[in-house]
Amino acid sequence: MSPTRAEVDAIIGHEFSPLMFQYTERDVSLYALGVGAPADPLDQDELKFVYELSSEGFQALPTFPVLYPSKMIDILLSGSLGGLTFNPMMLVHGEQYLEIKSAIPTQATITSIPRIAQIYDKGSGALVITETTSHDEQGTEIAANRSSMFIRGIGGFGGDRGPSTKDNMPPERPPDVVHQEKTSVTQALLYRLSGDINPLHADPAMAAMGQFDRPILHGLCSFGFAGRAVLKHFCHNDPTRFKSIQVRFSKHVFPGETLVTEMWQESASKVIFQTKVAERNEDVLSYAAVELHA
Amino acid sequence: MSPTRAEVDAIIGHEFSPLMFQYTERDVSLYALGVGAPADPLDQDELKFVYELSSEGFQALPTFPVLYPSKMIDILLSGSLGGLTFNPMMLVHGEQYLEIKSAIPTQATITSIPRIAQIYDKGSGALVITETTSHDEQGTEIAANRSSMFIRGIGGFGGDRGPSTKDNMPPERPPDVVHQEKTSVTQALLYRLSGDINPLHADPAMAAMGQFDRPILHGLCSFGFAGRAVLKHFCHNDPTRFKSIQVRFSKHVFPGETLVTEMWQESASKVIFQTKVAERNEDVLSYAAVELHA
Repeated sequence: MSPTRAEVDAIIGHEFSPLMFQYTERDVSLYALGVGAPADPLDQDELKFVYELSSEGFQALPTFPVLYPSKMIDILLSGSLGGLTFNPMMLVHGEQYLEIKSAIPTQATITSIPRIAQIYDKGSGALVITETTSHDEQGTEIAANRSSMFIRGIGGFGGDRGPSTKDNMPPERPPDVVHQEKTSVTQALLYRLSGDINPLHADPAMAAMGQFDRPILHGLCSFGFAGRAVLKHFCHNDPTRFKSIQVRFSKHVFPGETLVTEMWQESASKVIFQTKVAERNEDVLSYAAVELHA
Repeated sequence: MSPTRAEVDAIIGHEFSPLMFQYTERDVSLYALGVGAPADPLDQDELKFVYELSSEGFQALPTFPVLYPSKMIDILLSGSLGGLTFNPMMLVHGEQYLEIKSAIPTQATITSIPRIAQIYDKGSGALVITETTSHDEQGTEIAANRSSMFIRGIGGFGGDRGPSTKDNMPPERPPDVVHQEKTSVTQALLYRLSGDINPLHADPAMAAMGQFDRPILHGLCSFGFAGRAVLKHFCHNDPTRFKSIQVRFSKHVFPGETLVTEMWQESASKVIFQTKVAERNEDVLSYAAVELHA
C-alpha cells in the first residue's frame, strides 16, 4: 500500500543511528572473490586483492567501501522505513555512487551514518535516496556512498518525480576497451557472504515473489566486476588511482551470465562505461563512470 | 635437517594447548562454497548447506568439523614441532579420518585438544600423526579427527616405518556410482578463507619452493568434494547419515581440475570410494571410505 505524502515528508532527512562495520583481511579477500577477483589466480595483479601475503602488497579493491553501510540491509529487509511499509522482495537497487576519500584500510572498524536524502514518486514505485559517510577509528573519512533504492508498488503519493539524469552517456564512437568476464552460477551465494543477505539473491521462492524466474545477482556484485574492469584497463590495478564510481542498475543479471563492460576514456580523469549481459544482450549497468586521480 | 631419534621420541604423546574455533552460519556457508556446494544453486538439496533460511533447514556439511582444529596450521607453518624443525612448504597432508560424534551445530564455539599420537620414519620424510577431540560449549563431543602430515626431507632418524595400510581397497567390479565435478580456478583461494592459509595454496613462488608448478588445492578441499559426492548418492544429502570418512591424499590437485569420484556400496553402512583427476588420470584420494548410519 502506498504511503501518504505527509508520511513520506516525515522521513525525508531522517538520519539513522550510526552503523558499525568491523572487518578483517579475510573479509577484504572474500569481497574480492565475490566480485570475481582474481580472473587469473597466477597473476599477481589481482592476486594481491585476495592474498594477504602478496609480494605486491595486499590491498582492498576500490569498490570495497560499498560494504561499509551494509547493515542498512537489515533495515530495508524489515520492510519498514518510518511511514513507508513495503514488501522487501519488491525492492531493487537503482543507482550507486561511491567516492573514496582516503586510502582503504585492509582491516578496520568503520562507523557509517546514513540519512534519507530524498524520496521521489516514480508513479509505479518510490525511489529512496540514501547518503552515507563512513569514518575509521581515528575519525578519518574513508568513503561516501549515495544509493537509490526503487521500491515497486508504493508510488502515487504525489510530488517530485526527481531528475531524469542522462549523465555519463557513452560517446558515439566504438568503445576504447571491452572487457568480458563470466560470473559463476554460485556468484550471488558467494557475494552475499559479504553482508547483503537479501533472500532475493539466494532463494528461488523469494525470487519468484519478486517476479524473477530465479535468484538474481546483487547489483553491487556486477558493480564490483565493472569496477575491476576499469581498474585493470585504466589504472594498472592500482586502487589509489580510483576516485569515484557511479552506475545505474538498469536490468538484473542472473548468476552464471557473462558481463561485457565497454569503456571509453573521456579525459585523463574520467572513464565512461556501460555493462551488458552477453547472453541476453541487455544493458545492466548504464550512465556509468569512474573518476580517476591523475 | 633431520631430527635425532631422541628428539622425535620427546614429542610423541605431546598434547597441545586447547584450540578454540568459534564459527557462525556464515562460516558454515563459506566452507560449503569452498568445497563446491551447491553444484546446482536452484536445487534445495545442496542450497541448504549455504543458505541460512533454507526451507529444508540450514545444515552444515558433515565434513565441516575438519575445520575444528584448524589453528593447528599456525603451529605447522611455524616450521617447528618440539625438536622437529622443517620447511613448512615441504609439508603435505597424508591422510585424514573424521568421525562425527553428535549433530554438527551451525554455529558454536568448539574446543579442540590435539595430541601427537605417533611419528614414523618413512626414510624420505617423517609422517606425523595427530589426534584431536572436539567439544562444544556444553562439553558434548562433536567430532574426532586423525590427521597424518608427511614432511619431506626430514626422515632417516630411525625407527618404525609405520603400518602400510591397504584398507578400503575398491572391489574388482566397476563402481556403483561415478560423480564428476569441476573445481574452479579460484577454489583454493576460496577454500583457504575457511582457515588453512598455507601459502602453498595461493602463492606461485611458495608453491615453487614446495616443488609444484603452481599452487595446489588443499587436500581437505578435495576431501570435501568427495564427501559431498557420497552424501548425495548414498545419503540423499542427509548429513545425519554420515558417521565417518577416511581418505589418503595420494597426489595433489590443481585448482580448476575435474574430480571424478568412483563409489562402491560395500554394505548398508559402508561406501568405499576413490577420487581421480580427470585431466591427468591420476588417483588423488585413495584407500577411502565413508561409514554410514543405517
